[in-house]
Formats: sequence, C-alpha cells, structure tokens
Amino acid sequence: MPKIVDHAKRRDEIAQVACQVVAAHGFEHATVARIARAAGYTTGMVAHYFDSKQEIILAALRLMLTRIEARLTRRHELGEDDLVSVLSEALPLDEQRFTECAFWMAFWGQVSADRNLRRLNACVHREYMRLYARCFVRHWPASSSWPKPVRDQALRSVVTFVNGLTASAVTSPADWPPATQVAQLRLQLGMLGIWAKGRHSRSAAAG
Amino acid sequence: MPKIVDHAKRRDEIAQVACQVVAAHGFEHATVARIARAAGYTTGMVAHYFDSKQEIILAALRLMLTRIEARLTRRHELGEDDLVSVLSEALPLDEQRFTECAFWMAFWGQVSADRNLRRLNACVHREYMRLYARCFVRHWPASSSWPKPVRDQALRSVVTFVNGLTASAVTSPADWPPATQVAQLRLQLGMLGIWAKGRHSRSAAAG
Repeated sequence: MPKIVDHAKRRDEIAQVACQVVAAHGFEHATVARIARAAGYTTGMVAHYFDSKQEIILAALRLMLTRIEARLTRRHELGEDDLVSVLSEALPLDEQRFTECAFWMAFWGQVSADRNLRRLNACVHREYMRLYARCFVRHWPASSSWPKPVRDQALRSVVTFVNGLTASAVTSPADWPPATQVAQLRLQLGMLGIWAKGRHSRSAAAG
Repeated sequence: MPKIVDHAKRRDEIAQVACQVVAAHGFEHATVARIARAAGYTTGMVAHYFDSKQEIILAALRLMLTRIEARLTRRHELGEDDLVSVLSEALPLDEQRFTECAFWMAFWGQVSADRNLRRLNACVHREYMRLYARCFVRHWPASSSWPKPVRDQALRSVVTFVNGLTASAVTSPADWPPATQVAQLRLQLGMLGIWAKGRHSRSAAAG
C-alpha cells in the first residue's frame, strides 16, 4: 500500500522550517538547499512542493498570518475579549513568536532591494490589514460606531505601532521584555480609544 | 606638492555610498567590492579606510544619526519648534530619507541572525534614544515637567511609532505617502501630550 502523504501539511512544515532558517541565518543564507537540509529532506523533495525560494517565502508569510489568525480566533472562542492580549498574539513575546517576528524583519529588510518581494509584500500586507480589521470588529465593539475615517486611522495607528514594537523587540530584545511591549501596546490602545471617542462624539454632535 | 585628502570626508563619502548600495541591493549583496566600485574607488583604497564591511556599516549607521541630528539642529536654529516637523526628519518623506530608512530596515533585517550586528545595533540604538531624548528637551518643553516614568514611556512610544512608520513606509510606499506618515505622527504626538498631561496632573494632585 502506498504511503499516504498529507501534501498541505508537508508544505506547511517546510514553510515553518524556512521561517526558522531565515530568522537564524538571515534571508540570503536561507537557500532552498539549506531549508531542505534543516527540514530533513533533499532539495529535490522540496522542489516537488515549491518551484522557488520565493514560493517558500510566500508560503511562510501566509503561514505566519494563518497562525496569528488561529491564535486570535482561539482567544475569541475562549471568550477572551481583552484587545491587548488578543493583539499581543502578534508580538514577539515568546520563542515561537520571536522567530516569526524575526522572519518578518528579515523579509522586510529585503523588500526595498527586490521588486518581486515588494509585490509579494504588497499582497501579504493587504491580508494583514484585513486581519487587523477583523480583530477590531470582534474585540473592539466600540470601533464599529466610529466614523470610517476614524476607524481607518485607528487601524493604521495600531498596525504601525505593532510593527514598531516588532522592530524594536527583535533588534533590541534586552530593552524590550514582554511586559514592556504589552504595557506600550496597552497605552497605545487606551490613547486611541479616548481619541476615537472624542472624534465620534464631536461628529455625532455636528451631525 | 602631495595632494591633500580629507580622510574624514572620504570615510563619510564611502559610508554614504554604502547606505545607497545596501538600500538598492540588500545587505548581503552590498560587498566591500561593490561599495568600492559604486564609490569609484578600488577595494584596496576602501580597505585603507575600513577594516571590514562591518566597520563600513557602523560608519553608515553613525552617519545617518549625525545627519538626522544635523537636520534637527538646523530646524532648531531656524526657530522652528513644531515637534511634528522636527521628528519628520527621521521619516522616509523624500528620496534621501527613504534611502536612509531602507538602509536601516536592511540592517535590522540582519540583526537577529548576526551576533556582531546585534552588538553594533545595541550601541547605535542607545545613541538613537539619546537623540530623541534631546529632541524632547528642545522641542517639547512641556515634557520636562512630566515625571520621569511618564517621559520615558512617551519617549519609547514615539521611537516605537517612528520605527513602525519607517517599516510601513519602506515596505509599502504606495500605502504611505508623506502626508499619511505625517498625519499619523501628528496624531501620535497629540495623543501622548494629552495622556502625559493627565498623568502629570494626577501625580501633581497626589503629591
């Protein structure tokens, strides 16, 4: 009887290893051969699943997004609704998330020099924004009553801040222990909530 | 008569070219030979000024900091005191600043995979924080009356936000035109000012 291989699972497995190899060795040194070796496969076997390094990287980026979303959903299902802890799922607070964030940073570091990666980033970036927008809908009920421009600005501000925390914590981990990252995120969301409420009441009064 | 060479100036010139080469070709492809060629020198000539690529990168990072500081000082001397426009000097709002920011991003992308770059970053990061602290003193007079923990948290928040804007604007320039970057920074500083004032009056009332 032929061995049954779960191809989707194997693709995810290779993408996950790629993420670790990039985080540990840098983007350029993460060759297909090195990723294959780290995953315990031959380069030929990896080529069976992916046509190029770029395809592996795209799969890894998508896997990270899927994972963040899965963690957000799990918290939602557990009835946990604290926006700070939900959004913390995207921050480098433990080893796994640090690796994921280090991978993003390594990827971002290549984007300005590589037209193909720029295109790839533009597409992943849109998915990423939609993920945050869904997060607002689920975990920040007040935001649904804000005028769209206010909600959009708050969304941009949160994404910008999370990206900044990621950059700071990955490059200077000693200065950014988990508690400091979470405290800064809490402050950011608190400030945005107050600002958006003020904007909303003003526009409601004017309407 | 021997030709008089301004060595400091030539070092700066090579560091500046290194910044452009890294931004255009990525960190790994910015070899000493490539940087030398782009600067119009031989590799041997560059070796006369720098022992290693790492030394060139450090010089480039320092040059970026010096430039940001010079731009901040110039605005100060011109009597311009709007904190938003002062801090905008660190954002990728024009071609030169975009190149500088793309260079930082490329550097950050290597930090998690390279112990030496991590050390180098830790040292540059401290200089960067001090630069922002000086900027607060000069351009945000109210901040000097805040309790130190409030000032520290505001400082971290601004640096995080500027880093996040840098990451967003370098990787997705179409989504982050200059006006959007400045509007987000303005919102951030406005929110922090209100928050810090509230914290300050509460602690003054309690004292």
